Amino acid sequence: MGRQKIYLDKLARFFQIRNMLLRQALAECLGTLILVMFGCGAVAQLVLSGGSHGMFLTVNFAFGFAATLGILVCGQVSGGHLNPAVTFSLCLLGRERWRKFPMYFLFQTIGGFFGAAVIFGMYYDALWDHPGSFNVTGPSATAGIFATYPGNHLTIVNGFFDQIIGTAALIVCILAIVDPYNNPIPQGLEAFTVGFVVLVIGLSMGFNSGYAVNPARDLGPRLFTALAGWGSEVFTVRNGWFLVPVLAPFLGAIIGTMIYQLMVGFHVEGEVRDRAEQTEENVQLTNTNSNANSKAHAKEMA
Amino acid sequence: MGRQKIYLDKLARFFQIRNMLLRQALAECLGTLILVMFGCGAVAQLVLSGGSHGMFLTVNFAFGFAATLGILVCGQVSGGHLNPAVTFSLCLLGRERWRKFPMYFLFQTIGGFFGAAVIFGMYYDALWDHPGSFNVTGPSATAGIFATYPGNHLTIVNGFFDQIIGTAALIVCILAIVDPYNNPIPQGLEAFTVGFVVLVIGLSMGFNSGYAVNPARDLGPRLFTALAGWGSEVFTVRNGWFLVPVLAPFLGAIIGTMIYQLMVGFHVEGEVRDRAEQTEENVQLTNTNSNANSKAHAKEMA
Amino acid sequence: MGRQKIYLDKLARFFQIRNMLLRQALAECLGTLILVMFGCGAVAQLVLSGGSHGMFLTVNFAFGFAATLGILVCGQVSGGHLNPAVTFSLCLLGRERWRKFPMYFLFQTIGGFFGAAVIFGMYYDALWDHPGSFNVTGPSATAGIFATYPGNHLTIVNGFFDQIIGTAALIVCILAIVDPYNNPIPQGLEAFTVGFVVLVIGLSMGFNSGYAVNPARDLGPRLFTALAGWGSEVFTVRNGWFLVPVLAPFLGAIIGTMIYQLMVGFHVEGEVRDRAEQTEENVQLTNTNSNANSKAHAKEMA
Amino acid sequence: MGRQKIYLDKLARFFQIRNMLLRQALAECLGTLILVMFGCGAVAQLVLSGGSHGMFLTVNFAFGFAATLGILVCGQVSGGHLNPAVTFSLCLLGRERWRKFPMYFLFQTIGGFFGAAVIFGMYYDALWDHPGSFNVTGPSATAGIFATYPGNHLTIVNGFFDQIIGTAALIVCILAIVDPYNNPIPQGLEAFTVGFVVLVIGLSMGFNSGYAVNPARDLGPRLFTALAGWGSEVFTVRNGWFLVPVLAPFLGAIIGTMIYQLMVGFHVEGEVRDRAEQTEENVQLTNTNSNANSKAHAKEMA
Repeated sequence: MGRQKIYLDKLARFFQIRNMLLRQALAECLGTLILVMFGCGAVAQLVLSGGSHGMFLTVNFAFGFAATLGILVCGQVSGGHLNPAVTFSLCLLGRERWRKFPMYFLFQTIGGFFGAAVIFGMYYDALWDHPGSFNVTGPSATAGIFATYPGNHLTIVNGFFDQIIGTAALIVCILAIVDPYNNPIPQGLEAFTVGFVVLVIGLSMGFNSGYAVNPARDLGPRLFTALAGWGSEVFTVRNGWFLVPVLAPFLGAIIGTMIYQLMVGFHVEGEVRDRAEQTEENVQLTNTNSNANSKAHAKEMA
Repeated sequence: MGRQKIYLDKLARFFQIRNMLLRQALAECLGTLILVMFGCGAVAQLVLSGGSHGMFLTVNFAFGFAATLGILVCGQVSGGHLNPAVTFSLCLLGRERWRKFPMYFLFQTIGGFFGAAVIFGMYYDALWDHPGSFNVTGPSATAGIFATYPGNHLTIVNGFFDQIIGTAALIVCILAIVDPYNNPIPQGLEAFTVGFVVLVIGLSMGFNSGYAVNPARDLGPRLFTALAGWGSEVFTVRNGWFLVPVLAPFLGAIIGTMIYQLMVGFHVEGEVRDRAEQTEENVQLTNTNSNANSKAHAKEMA
Repeated sequence: MGRQKIYLDKLARFFQIRNMLLRQALAECLGTLILVMFGCGAVAQLVLSGGSHGMFLTVNFAFGFAATLGILVCGQVSGGHLNPAVTFSLCLLGRERWRKFPMYFLFQTIGGFFGAAVIFGMYYDALWDHPGSFNVTGPSATAGIFATYPGNHLTIVNGFFDQIIGTAALIVCILAIVDPYNNPIPQGLEAFTVGFVVLVIGLSMGFNSGYAVNPARDLGPRLFTALAGWGSEVFTVRNGWFLVPVLAPFLGAIIGTMIYQLMVGFHVEGEVRDRAEQTEENVQLTNTNSNANSKAHAKEMA
Repeated sequence: MGRQKIYLDKLARFFQIRNMLLRQALAECLGTLILVMFGCGAVAQLVLSGGSHGMFLTVNFAFGFAATLGILVCGQVSGGHLNPAVTFSLCLLGRERWRKFPMYFLFQTIGGFFGAAVIFGMYYDALWDHPGSFNVTGPSATAGIFATYPGNHLTIVNGFFDQIIGTAALIVCILAIVDPYNNPIPQGLEAFTVGFVVLVIGLSMGFNSGYAVNPARDLGPRLFTALAGWGSEVFTVRNGWFLVPVLAPFLGAIIGTMIYQLMVGFHVEGEVRDRAEQTEENVQLTNTNSNANSKAHAKEMA
């Protein structure tokens, strides 16, 4: 075992990346890969099995717990955003540096791309076996396994609004969970709680267009499908629907951040600041007092 | 980033509310909004998709975990009641001041109102696409998305009893979870446990009339539907059914509080009090002894 | 609020029970009431709604989380057994006194009786509305809401074996969870873990006869149905089937205790004992050494 | 109770095994027994009830939480691998000794064998009642209750790839959960988190061939079925499919280990090592300084 340890140590030193931002971006990439792999895998299982091995609830569970697992894998390194809208919201609040945003966005999208690729490889036979293997629209379409497409009842305006609401709801809950001044859950359970948020969003906001609420989760797999055989229709269908889950989440992130801060965040934060300032004043007062006391004491002694 | 921090700080100071009760009421409002948004959203998804994107179990999960998330968002500020019956029960036990009760009730109802409004906006297209879009009764009714209506088999007396039992069960479990003398779960997991309580109530007490067990969760959305197009029928249907989920939960809260206190609460509390009183006596005894000892010691020294 | 506090204090002192065993028995009663109320409530919802508001999975969830909630309500007072077979197993291992066993058994059964009564009251209208309201056997039987009955494929021997295996599996898992020498989960999460055990047993061992694995959970509700209108047939059906879920669990408890102790428990326990004995020896050795040393040192000094 | 304690103590001393590896192997055996018993039990319930008492989701839940419970039962003793691929991966990383690997593999397989035997006994009547009781292939086959068989759409190459991906995903998540340098969850919640991993794999990777991703979980029950009446066909069917879930997981373990280490593990580990080395240097520096200081001080004093 001694030789194995030495060899492992050499390997570890050889492959170690010391650039923090790159390491974080790589971790985000793996985390988003896991999110998309398990999430889209569950959609694939539902669609390709014709409902015998899944239902919409299993997709919700899969995306929720996949978010949990993705965060667990990369959270200690990169924060576990897995979603450019989350990164965006944290940048808005000054909790992450803005230069992280493009890197995270890029690597999260790459993670989504490869997550879709893994599922494509895994269900390759099943996909070919499925009627209408590479259809983007129609009742036997399979493009919806990877990226989201709007339901027939949905106008583009309502769809945009749908993505805004979904992302705002996600952001309000995530901000509450990670707010340093409003500490509702034990250290280490954030990943599980975010998983529940994603699960609940799927349970209640998934009917319109499949709750992307995440530009990277939608764009990465859509790019993959465009290359893997579904063609450019994945971008052109429904007058460029693909832009909705890429753009609306950022608007939703702004709105969600504002709602949380106005209704809870600013006040909790302010209370802490007020108390800190008061304590400071008290300390000064006490110092003055103790100085006075010690002077008085000194006099007495004299 | 320096300028952003300064700007954020200014914003935070500008919007900070220092009135504690108002802040708490606002937090309750947001928490209840989240509860109703996710909960009613799941019902909307079930009804509007015709069962393809949901079932009764998904509604149960959504209400349960929505309660968890609502509590997480506001719990540190306001206690996370989300339910006037819970506030009422804690007032009964002297753990919250009575003047909080009307404020919480009002803002919880407002939260419910806006939660329903969000879901209405989100599923606006789907609602118009649904046969019988704005029906209050009948097989394709959609009013049940927002407020609860009794099943056809249910008499008003049994319905009243149903709401009493459901709320009593809720209160017994919540009191056990937050009882300061009976501390069954780790700090920070209360929200999850309450979520499980709501889930289980849905799994086993949801068939009669949909387990409102919460006056604000039912009244707020019902008011919204009355204004949004369903009309006054939401109040008049089944001889004023709407009063049942508003009034019965308070009776249920009284009964639940009594049952928990009589069977567990008073005894646990009493044991702590007994021990405290005994310790006090012991301390007095010890003091006397030590005084005696020190006197004896002093004598010896002399 | 001052007057309220005084009044509450008086109430608390008046109703406080100081007999520990009675308090524990009362707590077990409430815990088992909650278990049966939520569990059988879920079966009622499934049966009476004809499958629209439930399925076998919801029953499994309800029984699992009902066990969790029942344990949370009474666990700090009585240990939260909710099941005479669990009490029996802990008595076998010398962790509970044998005189607790009959008291717990009695009050757990009473809790089951009243839990069934609550559900009977709650779904009274729905029960009368159901075809074959008070049938014990046949396709529209409702007795199965409260107590368990064997499937048509099941012989009494296999049914006995089924209850033994189910209870043994339950006991193995519970013993691992509460083993003081094998401490796998954080303090305070035992209730949740036991809930998962009950859930899993339902998912995989529920087809034969509905996984009673608990004499009190089965006997209490069965007694209630005998009185409430189903008649003595609940006891006589299938040649006295009712004895199987009353007797087999105790046999299962013995077997489960043996398996856990032989494969894990004795060795973990033994290791701790070995270490303790070794430490003791070391301490003695050290004492001797240090005595020797100090003597030597004293000599040197001299 | 005194006599009982003495008797129990005697029993404990008599049956105590002091060989660490054997104790660990026994614990793994019990853990895997629990995993297979609950997991395959859920498949049995689904298949034998014809879908009335289960669906694919319940199987996923059962395998997930069965993994949790299996780990809880044996984790403190043996680490709770329950899967030779996990043991293999930890050996690869030098966290377990290689000599454990064959012992664990053997006893995990034995545990799987007996887990299947328990379920066979439990559902013996139901199995005989099922049309095509002991068929290995065809629509009413029951061999799939115990071991995994590929879907009709699956080629052996894709099936091999499917098992590699599934196991790699499992290993990436498990390594993140147990990585000593990347500590994402509170102590004691590992078992639950691994349960979620197994659940998610079932939700999204279960359609091809039923997600064995575990040589022992598949080989043990398959051996049992060969002996219990299904015959040697369980090995010969589909050109020796049985080798796929035995061999592919080890390849998957290697790939999963590499992915996790390259994308997260090496860097986290390296950072800790870098910091440790730096601290060491600092300490040396400080020591030198303090020596210098003390010398200077000594001079001053002189």
